[in-house]
Amino acid sequence: MSPTGLPSTLGVVGLGLIGGSLARAVVERGGTVVATTRSPEARAGAGAAGITVVDDVASVVAAADVVVLAVPLPVLDQILAEAGEAAATRPPDQRPTLTDVGSVKVPITQRAAEVLDDPRTFVAGHPMAGTERQGWEAGRGDLFVGRRWALAVDEPVALDRWAQVAGLATTVGSEVVPVDAEDHDRAVALVSHLPYALAATAAALVDEDRHPGLGQVLAAGSFADLTRVAGGHPSLGVEMALANRRALAERLHQLTNRLDDLAALLEDGDGDAVAACFASGREGREAIERLSVARGPGRALELDRHGLLALGRGGERVVDVAPASSNADALTVTVIDPGAPA
Amino acid sequence: MSPTGLPSTLGVVGLGLIGGSLARAVVERGGTVVATTRSPEARAGAGAAGITVVDDVASVVAAADVVVLAVPLPVLDQILAEAGEAAATRPPDQRPTLTDVGSVKVPITQRAAEVLDDPRTFVAGHPMAGTERQGWEAGRGDLFVGRRWALAVDEPVALDRWAQVAGLATTVGSEVVPVDAEDHDRAVALVSHLPYALAATAAALVDEDRHPGLGQVLAAGSFADLTRVAGGHPSLGVEMALANRRALAERLHQLTNRLDDLAALLEDGDGDAVAACFASGREGREAIERLSVARGPGRALELDRHGLLALGRGGERVVDVAPASSNADALTVTVIDPGAPA
Repeated sequence: MSPTGLPSTLGVVGLGLIGGSLARAVVERGGTVVATTRSPEARAGAGAAGITVVDDVASVVAAADVVVLAVPLPVLDQILAEAGEAAATRPPDQRPTLTDVGSVKVPITQRAAEVLDDPRTFVAGHPMAGTERQGWEAGRGDLFVGRRWALAVDEPVALDRWAQVAGLATTVGSEVVPVDAEDHDRAVALVSHLPYALAATAAALVDEDRHPGLGQVLAAGSFADLTRVAGGHPSLGVEMALANRRALAERLHQLTNRLDDLAALLEDGDGDAVAACFASGREGREAIERLSVARGPGRALELDRHGLLALGRGGERVVDVAPASSNADALTVTVIDPGAPA
Repeated sequence: MSPTGLPSTLGVVGLGLIGGSLARAVVERGGTVVATTRSPEARAGAGAAGITVVDDVASVVAAADVVVLAVPLPVLDQILAEAGEAAATRPPDQRPTLTDVGSVKVPITQRAAEVLDDPRTFVAGHPMAGTERQGWEAGRGDLFVGRRWALAVDEPVALDRWAQVAGLATTVGSEVVPVDAEDHDRAVALVSHLPYALAATAAALVDEDRHPGLGQVLAAGSFADLTRVAGGHPSLGVEMALANRRALAERLHQLTNRLDDLAALLEDGDGDAVAACFASGREGREAIERLSVARGPGRALELDRHGLLALGRGGERVVDVAPASSNADALTVTVIDPGAPA
């Protein structure tokens, strides 16, 4: 097994959109995948796709050197405990690296510290590759191409374990963002969970209005954009909101303070200040749009844990990872140069 | 000239996205259009498209029986005054019907009451047919097909004038929503202007965060949806917000109250109540989605002004208009049956 690229055998628990896509991506690249699933459709489809399907989590952990726990948030705690128990039955130098794909990272790293013999083997991960669709049938081997994949690199994860998962992620086409779990949860509270809360709250206001039919019939494209995720997966928004509830509550307060300020400016008719609010929003949106087209020649950097954390805080993305030539406590990573367009 | 369908000669002031599309739509249906524009590109394009281009607003008003003022909000007041002045030079029984296409209706109806000799000839209108693009080049003759077009039917507009504009709108493919100007402005504050304010405010928060790069790089599809309109037309959001500032401020307060409630539920960890919030949002979104597929056989109704207003408040859409057979104070309208899918 190489510290970068594909593991000798990838284990996957759960063959929904994310797990099923990752298993396909690895098989398509010539890798070996052992997986388990509770879905008869996924079991049949995975067998036909060249994935070895086994009966339980323990059998996956016994066979793999990296195990991806690709299960919904409500069952992740339980599955992590099962995987940890199975890992503990293997010799210490043969225990697999465990990683998850949940959208909130602090609770699962706390859980890992409680239930794993060696929490340094757990890499908290978050591939940003969701779609409106779910399940094995919705999966595709190129799902991760060009998507960001956050991987927590804060204590206590071992850097070589982190590099294993980062290598898997970059090999299937993702850009890895090294994160601190708490930074991650604060960031996604704003850029992922807040939009779900806003979509639901705004959509509910129309129904409760004096003339709901009028609001419904006049709802424009901007409202369709705002409320789109309110109509998707029925429990995803709630699960994320509850899993990240403190960070989301803080973001809601932050937003309502700003909206109350804007309301006051509108009541005062302060056109210049209102225009400044909209101009700031435009700049914020444009910064994100620029990022999505930025693709420069890679820069190789040798970084320790703190260097990797600083990289992620700056919004940089890793597209290749290898052991550092001269330093066991560091990795050599190649990052996208955000300055140069594609 | 028929009270429904196309006017003998349509006048258009401003050949941007809306005016240019409407002029094309009418010419494509065999109608006659006289227009004026300050854009050399639009002037050349319109000439080639069979539209008679004249030099000023007065020349349009002199030639047409319905005049659409398709200019941006900041100049609409001035153009309405010019059109009113020109209309007053024609004999009272030959004065054209004037209508606008702005996204806010109370201020322009107040303006019409001040500057027009006969405010009964003014029909405040709002075709919901905006796109990200602007200008003559962005226009297309089928822009209005299947779009809603709000037309204020509250006092003092004359019903036969209203029917003229409604006939134009339905002939080019729109579904007319009869509205009270104040109801309209309250509704669009929620379903059109609030999304612009939210997009700008949320996008600005990322830039101001402790680690803006991290938020930018982790911004997911839900955030892209939420902030999309923050990146569009540079002044549209501000213009709409200021034109509808009191209604928008009320909506902002209404929303922040709900968001503060949701934050409190999250802080308390009240999972059932959080789930109920998201479920309400889902219902609100689904009600809007259902409306967009509802297409039943038309029902013909004979309605006076109050009946038309009630129709719009219920979210019903008019697809055909004619004089009522037995009542000069009523119209016969055909409405879409929202119960039956296409």
